[in-house]
Amino acid sequence: MWKIGVVGFGNVSQGLLRILDKKAQTLKERYGFGCTVTAIADPVKGSVLNTSGLDIGGLLAEFDHKGDLKAHPHATDMGTIDIIRQSEADIVVEATITNLKTGEPGVTHIRTALEAGKHVVSTNKGPVSTSLPDLLEVARNHGVEYLFEGVVLSGTPAINLARDALAGCDISRVLGIVNGTTNYILTRMEEGMAYEEALAKAQELGYAEADPTGDVEGWDAAVKAQVLANVLMGKALRIEDVDKRGITGITSENIQAAKSRGNRIKLIAEVASTGSKVSAKVAPMELPLSHPLANIMDAVNALTFTTDHLGDVTIIGPGAGRVETGQALLTDILSIHRKRG
Amino acid sequence: MWKIGVVGFGNVSQGLLRILDKKAQTLKERYGFGCTVTAIADPVKGSVLNTSGLDIGGLLAEFDHKGDLKAHPHATDMGTIDIIRQSEADIVVEATITNLKTGEPGVTHIRTALEAGKHVVSTNKGPVSTSLPDLLEVARNHGVEYLFEGVVLSGTPAINLARDALAGCDISRVLGIVNGTTNYILTRMEEGMAYEEALAKAQELGYAEADPTGDVEGWDAAVKAQVLANVLMGKALRIEDVDKRGITGITSENIQAAKSRGNRIKLIAEVASTGSKVSAKVAPMELPLSHPLANIMDAVNALTFTTDHLGDVTIIGPGAGRVETGQALLTDILSIHRKRG
Repeated sequence: MWKIGVVGFGNVSQGLLRILDKKAQTLKERYGFGCTVTAIADPVKGSVLNTSGLDIGGLLAEFDHKGDLKAHPHATDMGTIDIIRQSEADIVVEATITNLKTGEPGVTHIRTALEAGKHVVSTNKGPVSTSLPDLLEVARNHGVEYLFEGVVLSGTPAINLARDALAGCDISRVLGIVNGTTNYILTRMEEGMAYEEALAKAQELGYAEADPTGDVEGWDAAVKAQVLANVLMGKALRIEDVDKRGITGITSENIQAAKSRGNRIKLIAEVASTGSKVSAKVAPMELPLSHPLANIMDAVNALTFTTDHLGDVTIIGPGAGRVETGQALLTDILSIHRKRG
Repeated sequence: MWKIGVVGFGNVSQGLLRILDKKAQTLKERYGFGCTVTAIADPVKGSVLNTSGLDIGGLLAEFDHKGDLKAHPHATDMGTIDIIRQSEADIVVEATITNLKTGEPGVTHIRTALEAGKHVVSTNKGPVSTSLPDLLEVARNHGVEYLFEGVVLSGTPAINLARDALAGCDISRVLGIVNGTTNYILTRMEEGMAYEEALAKAQELGYAEADPTGDVEGWDAAVKAQVLANVLMGKALRIEDVDKRGITGITSENIQAAKSRGNRIKLIAEVASTGSKVSAKVAPMELPLSHPLANIMDAVNALTFTTDHLGDVTIIGPGAGRVETGQALLTDILSIHRKRG
């Protein structure tokens, strides 16, 4: 029986807990997996701690009703770091808000957990971007895992696909549509919408944030390119090393001109390994319709891995969403269960 | 250090051994994986046995030069069953010729190995089609693994993708292009070739056999549908339970008519789970070009999994080939190493 501690109780953690609650029986039968959640640390929504295990169904019901956990019988004022240490958790879920500049507070949460001998599963892009080599070394030194499938393509297998299912292959290149917001905008623009209108629609649907800079200027895609380079090609690229251009310079005229040539403009993240050199970039590319990535529309994401043993292998799936990203955490937890259970 | 025994020394086993030889250092560094091959059993090409480990590079060079292993210093007249038992192998690779009617001799090879406490990795569709529940029970009773990634989509992650990378998801439906030969023929027919001409071209390229029945009448796709149903949906469907129609009834007129409607005809394997009922079928389907499977051309294969947590996830990659199928065996071996090493 695994003990799980949750840090950050936003959509993603809630998505995971809903799955764990609903699928407890299935996970037991199919994978011999069982868990209790012993702690949730969230200074805004309220923290709870019970090392004997919380009643997840009851807790989610209370949260849905009240919007926070502050009146929960096991509510605590303890700080997040102390909760991590006292949670008795075997696996810590880190899903706090991403900060691409410092990685904090995620980096400190993850480091604290790893140093306490706890595995970490995380969807937080900040720590992976700012501190991956460092955190992986801490994990190695403490004999635990630090997994982050959800950082690229949410629950659609990307990192675990490349590491496990493609194990034994050398990956020389990855091309991807890794940002759903910009792909949604480009899809609407091809249908005739102006950029501003398509962006407003993406914001209305919750794909784009009020300040869309992170998506439309390519920051989000650049982090994912950086992570893929570092994880799959063993290099320690920094985010500044990613040659980045977003879609703000793309006009309806560009898109219609590409269309008239039988092509389509996509915002493409590209990671390539040549000899000992690894490069990563993000830029709009005009692809022929015969290219597997040219047909990825709306908010869907996709990655094409170029490998030595299989040639090109492409995976297509969702890139965001509460349940989708909760699934990424679950797949990492089950991966730890498979290896360490 | 894993000991590996190889049964059947055709293209696929040769592909695996070439990878193991070429990548020994990489596999050591990246996965802490090391192996020796102690036996190769092939009544036609010659059998060799050396429980201290064979020199793979030398053996492959000799095979390339002479076309068989009959003059190898460790050549043996021992029968295959005895070789399996005396190989001291931890993992047996079963890659003999497929027999869809009886599964033999594969079933006997696999059963012998499992009963001797050896893991089995196999690309042989026959035993999976005729005897899967039985062989999985033998494996369970002896505490070993029976893995067969290569049976569907060769080394392109399919079974392991669904079982490991999508772990935690319920899969309610799988749609796939699982036979490269028929997809190649349909692609050429869309370009204007007649069926007979396209088939001849596929035979010339080695995609189709002299007797193309297994491909064009849908038998190969039906077995893959059966395997997907049984592995992913836990049912024991027999090959006769798969509702099967191939492409022999498809005319150039059908294909051009679909094209004029903006659609494309593909031979689709479909597996669906509704309540406690699981169905599997193979039939030509007319898909809109917006469907991910409509854009899979030539001999490429693809599967779309419909899941509860992620919606649709599609994987695209090669479906055949020596190195590609060798990679499938390697990924299964590395999966055993990860879990049991």
